[in-house]
Amino acid sequence: MKKIVTILVFISQTLFAQQHPIAFATKPELKAVFNDLHSNSLLNVSFKRIKDEVDPFLSKNIDVPFPKDAAGGYTHDQHKSNYLLMYNAGLLYQITSEKKYADLVKSIFLKYAALNPTLKNHPQATSSSPGRLFWQALNDANWLVYAGMAFDCIHDYLSVSERKQIADGAFKPLVEYFTKDQKNWFNLIHNHAVWACAGVGIVGIATDNEDYLKMALYGTEKNGKAGFIAQLNGLFSPDGFYHEGPYYTRYALLPFYLFANAIQQVKPSLGIFQYRDKILKKALDVALNQTNLTGEFYSYNDALKDKTYISNEVVVAIDIAWQAYGFDSSYLAIAKAQNRVILNKGGADISKKIIALKNVLTYQYHSAEYTDGEKGDFGGVSVLRNGKYNELASLIFKYTSHGLSHGHYDKLNIQFYDKGNEILQDYGAVRYINIEHKWGGRYLPETNSYAQQTIAHNTITVDETSHYNGKENIAELNHPNKLFGHIGNGSLQVASAFDDKAYSNVKLFRTEYLMKLPGTDKTLLVDIFKTYADSIHQYDLPFNYLGTLMKTNFKYTSCNTSLTTLGAKNGYQHLWKEAFANHVDPFTQFTFLNNKTFYTISSLTDDAVDVFFTRIGANDPNFNLRRDPSYILRSFGKNKTFINAIEVHGNFSPVTEIANNSVASLMSMVKLQDDEDYTAVEINLDDKKLYIIQCNKNFDSSTMHEFSNGQFHAKWNGPYYVEYNQQQLK
Amino acid sequence: MKKIVTILVFISQTLFAQQHPIAFATKPELKAVFNDLHSNSLLNVSFKRIKDEVDPFLSKNIDVPFPKDAAGGYTHDQHKSNYLLMYNAGLLYQITSEKKYADLVKSIFLKYAALNPTLKNHPQATSSSPGRLFWQALNDANWLVYAGMAFDCIHDYLSVSERKQIADGAFKPLVEYFTKDQKNWFNLIHNHAVWACAGVGIVGIATDNEDYLKMALYGTEKNGKAGFIAQLNGLFSPDGFYHEGPYYTRYALLPFYLFANAIQQVKPSLGIFQYRDKILKKALDVALNQTNLTGEFYSYNDALKDKTYISNEVVVAIDIAWQAYGFDSSYLAIAKAQNRVILNKGGADISKKIIALKNVLTYQYHSAEYTDGEKGDFGGVSVLRNGKYNELASLIFKYTSHGLSHGHYDKLNIQFYDKGNEILQDYGAVRYINIEHKWGGRYLPETNSYAQQTIAHNTITVDETSHYNGKENIAELNHPNKLFGHIGNGSLQVASAFDDKAYSNVKLFRTEYLMKLPGTDKTLLVDIFKTYADSIHQYDLPFNYLGTLMKTNFKYTSCNTSLTTLGAKNGYQHLWKEAFANHVDPFTQFTFLNNKTFYTISSLTDDAVDVFFTRIGANDPNFNLRRDPSYILRSFGKNKTFINAIEVHGNFSPVTEIANNSVASLMSMVKLQDDEDYTAVEINLDDKKLYIIQCNKNFDSSTMHEFSNGQFHAKWNGPYYVEYNQQQLK
Repeated sequence: MKKIVTILVFISQTLFAQQHPIAFATKPELKAVFNDLHSNSLLNVSFKRIKDEVDPFLSKNIDVPFPKDAAGGYTHDQHKSNYLLMYNAGLLYQITSEKKYADLVKSIFLKYAALNPTLKNHPQATSSSPGRLFWQALNDANWLVYAGMAFDCIHDYLSVSERKQIADGAFKPLVEYFTKDQKNWFNLIHNHAVWACAGVGIVGIATDNEDYLKMALYGTEKNGKAGFIAQLNGLFSPDGFYHEGPYYTRYALLPFYLFANAIQQVKPSLGIFQYRDKILKKALDVALNQTNLTGEFYSYNDALKDKTYISNEVVVAIDIAWQAYGFDSSYLAIAKAQNRVILNKGGADISKKIIALKNVLTYQYHSAEYTDGEKGDFGGVSVLRNGKYNELASLIFKYTSHGLSHGHYDKLNIQFYDKGNEILQDYGAVRYINIEHKWGGRYLPETNSYAQQTIAHNTITVDETSHYNGKENIAELNHPNKLFGHIGNGSLQVASAFDDKAYSNVKLFRTEYLMKLPGTDKTLLVDIFKTYADSIHQYDLPFNYLGTLMKTNFKYTSCNTSLTTLGAKNGYQHLWKEAFANHVDPFTQFTFLNNKTFYTISSLTDDAVDVFFTRIGANDPNFNLRRDPSYILRSFGKNKTFINAIEVHGNFSPVTEIANNSVASLMSMVKLQDDEDYTAVEINLDDKKLYIIQCNKNFDSSTMHEFSNGQFHAKWNGPYYVEYNQQQLK
Repeated sequence: MKKIVTILVFISQTLFAQQHPIAFATKPELKAVFNDLHSNSLLNVSFKRIKDEVDPFLSKNIDVPFPKDAAGGYTHDQHKSNYLLMYNAGLLYQITSEKKYADLVKSIFLKYAALNPTLKNHPQATSSSPGRLFWQALNDANWLVYAGMAFDCIHDYLSVSERKQIADGAFKPLVEYFTKDQKNWFNLIHNHAVWACAGVGIVGIATDNEDYLKMALYGTEKNGKAGFIAQLNGLFSPDGFYHEGPYYTRYALLPFYLFANAIQQVKPSLGIFQYRDKILKKALDVALNQTNLTGEFYSYNDALKDKTYISNEVVVAIDIAWQAYGFDSSYLAIAKAQNRVILNKGGADISKKIIALKNVLTYQYHSAEYTDGEKGDFGGVSVLRNGKYNELASLIFKYTSHGLSHGHYDKLNIQFYDKGNEILQDYGAVRYINIEHKWGGRYLPETNSYAQQTIAHNTITVDETSHYNGKENIAELNHPNKLFGHIGNGSLQVASAFDDKAYSNVKLFRTEYLMKLPGTDKTLLVDIFKTYADSIHQYDLPFNYLGTLMKTNFKYTSCNTSLTTLGAKNGYQHLWKEAFANHVDPFTQFTFLNNKTFYTISSLTDDAVDVFFTRIGANDPNFNLRRDPSYILRSFGKNKTFINAIEVHGNFSPVTEIANNSVASLMSMVKLQDDEDYTAVEINLDDKKLYIIQCNKNFDSSTMHEFSNGQFHAKWNGPYYVEYNQQQLK
């Protein structure tokens, strides 16, 4: 609490009625941007793009309609266009000094000053925090952020009475609605509230209203229990992991960075960018490292898969971070991919650096482990990687806490990406954002009925019931715990976690071993998933693979002429059973082709399993769900062990029409021991042997263990031992 | 027949025992290639790629295994690798004069000289033309083509006895097997036989065997009824349309070009490249113009969708065509995309031209109409286009004849591509080429049971029975006929065709109107499909759309908890019925999203229709089929008219999250007349009116027609009249 108090002292000394603009950038900074507009620079291209967007509206009468439509509808899109137009035109006024831009902004503001005082809750509001201009208050907060910066840009162009007219008419009704009627929402530690605080704070700075700024920083009660500083504390772990996951980090980064930038401008001595050991830089870095090769944020929690680091939010964050934290080659690589900058000092500087670049820069992904929770003690996520550039393989092992309303019931879930392709997917959310046809762009019911349920994930569902019984309030209180792990650049990376809260009567223990086998380029993932229970349960372990079935080592029955669902609830009602096999030998193999690479999932279970090939799409009357497949292993018992090996092998070239190594090298798996102390497995890959011995009880890193079974002997320290071709992997 | 006789005379004067090499290129040409190897040129990059492929084998003992495996298996891939290695090493020997390359080729040849005389039919042979080294004779023909060129390259390096040893041991058994045992196959007018002739002919040139060359040119009886010249006559229409369609053109181009090139080298006075009014250039040009923006060949008939003009066959054809026909900017654009050349004079010249290029070249697609059949009287295909570069929309209207064993029962089918995406697809073939897991890479049974059947296409299936009752021998004898059309650069393009043979009791009449609506960028396709019959039939018209359902203007019933098939045979057994609507109002609308663009199919039928939303996947025990959707209109009656409008509208940006124009502008369709003389329809697009009047009986281009219905009057010449916003479209 010490740091917060310090900042409170600083801010109380701030005297308002300062120079304008200041919220986004100052006049000298924008003058410098103007002087930096050279022909081919990213800065100039970005400037022209904005000019091209704004200029056609200069002579137009801009519509400020009475709110009526949900997302994707006319009034929604118009108000969204308006705030972007005002912001862009405001910036152009400052950069070019051409009054026509200021005049455009003023004319729109005067319409909002007339409209906003007349608004009640939006007619299409279905959310618990209804908006006024838009169907949800979140969008009204977006409006405040951009309109606030626009006002700041034309502040000095307006007469005193015009300023008052806009401040009282356009801003005050929304600010009061937020800080009085929607006080509880405004005071949440949640990404919507970050937007709300940024909006109210930026409007405070633009209109010289210190009271607004204080509420934005410290909550409506101004006691620091809510507001922006509390959000900086509460929404990130000490590592910078954002509680809602990477897709929402991207979204939250924008108000965090825009408002921090404004605070920094108004009172640089507060050192907001240094706060919590540079928590905002960490947050950006963690978000960037949680993207696929092609830029998409990892799709765990409620994520839309087409969102990449090209998106506007990340452009803003990168360019402000550059200004705040200085040179960073990874930011440069992302900025190059983004192919645009914002019109601030950071954007101008990046633009110059990119022109001077000699070599192609690519973002350097690295293995990492991020804790979750304000204090870093609410589980976390491990990102294990093999290979470089386009050959990168990434395993995401998730043992985070729930992540608020957009969290999924997915404890100990894994996702696997290879060569930029999703191999084992997390479905993400069921939503067509801003497409009116799809329930006005809202989250669709199948997000909850399917995508959030455990069976939609690559982790175990017990007795066809989701983790925490699918109850968010219980999920929010709990999380798995990391047991042991190893991140590095060697041939082996490990992550292990344990959960005893997702089910009241079953404990889950899962460990991932990602290997680059020496002497080959082969990526092999071994996944040991153990359950502990006192009574018999049904365990379903799905592999939500993307690709085409090539081969299985077992016979199955195909449902040729009629399909039924795999179950009736908790997501099972959305799965068609396309094929199944009952009581299959414990060693199962399934090969599929994704793009031009083969993948084989080999599994060894304690005894015979049932296997299902399913496809999403049942109980989907509005065709909201993708028709993606899954491969599900089902086992019955108390304590069970699934040992799964996912082998990346071969490739198919459509040009030469040659398929190399389409058959897996994994020939067999033999369990050497599996009890409360150890799980030991021998895996035969062509003529080589791989041994994995895992401690199931003692995870101390310095304890010495010994294992011997006649042929094979090992002696090691710590919770696991891995040996390939008579060489220990580390 | 006159031209053939001329060529016969020429060839009989040819005296053999000439200089070597000559089949691919002469010594001076290859010397010139060597002198042109500059650092960054495509030529040098291509040379190095070949050198990098060959060099690792120089010190190796190359395996020439006894044939055992089907496609994708070891012995198959090894023999394929071997002939490419021999060919490449032979070329390298000529270019670099380094004897180690010649020695490598010789050592492999000597093994084949020992192996080939011992071979009987391949143990995995299932085709009617079994191979010896490979499972089908086609692959043996590939071997002959490349091995022939390789021998030619090292001809002068070999001693006379070595030449004889190889000619008698490696070549003769295969040539005799082809020209005696497989004589009927060799004498076919079919792409496999083109390969066979090219192989035997090139071996003839390389080994100075005039008899081989004569059989290759004129068939085993040397009477011109078979062989390469007959294939040049029989497999292309006068326009250069290849009888089996674009995917197989690509494949056939390679032996056509390689062998023609060899003939040209041996006897340039024959003028083979000028034959039939430059039929080989036409064939290449027609093939290139039948590709999607991203290079994939249109997928009608048995096509694999990932084959593009980047493939080796087209590289060879482009570079030989450049040498034969001279500068062509479209070849340069394709060569640039291919990013490699072959090591001949054409490749060297293209490489120089590309270095000198100032601007980005893109292949210029154009609307075109191609006749089918040797005389151009077996129907054809119209390719109608709108827009340029990445905005290109392409409609393929197919009224060709069957196209041999790889043809589909798809009379009057349409395919629609937009912005490089498939919107209304032709499934293509069901095959995973050379992937051993999938029946050794052969065509899978679902090619016939689903992909070739009429219901897999965007055309009418009558009474759940495929065209010609699915009988290839009947299909081969028949074809639809073009009625009228208009190709150009204006706002309207038209193609109309008629079929009375696909069904004995129903006549089909379909007309496509592709429009670029003046004053907008909107692409609108209107499709008028009429049936004529004496008794009542069931008409199913599918739209095999790719995308996600957004909206319908009718209520439907979703099959939520169980699925059944749409039918029991002729492809229907592979379709799951996901949703249906019975007796829907005659004006139906269905909007879907494909990538970032919306598409709405609006249909007006004579009376109520049934609608089905289906998905492929039933009766697919080996998971060979893609789970693609279809939207099917079903109508019962005698004479029926389906008027369908496919509107391309709006876009969704995942970056800005804004969806523009997600609602179609087409509001309603009103039939003004529909009888044996005319079909007239009024289509309301927002506040504009579109009228289409089509003559159903008189297709004469100069006849004057008049139409009036009180509000609307028109007077025009020819078989149709189209007016939008009071302006005639042409």
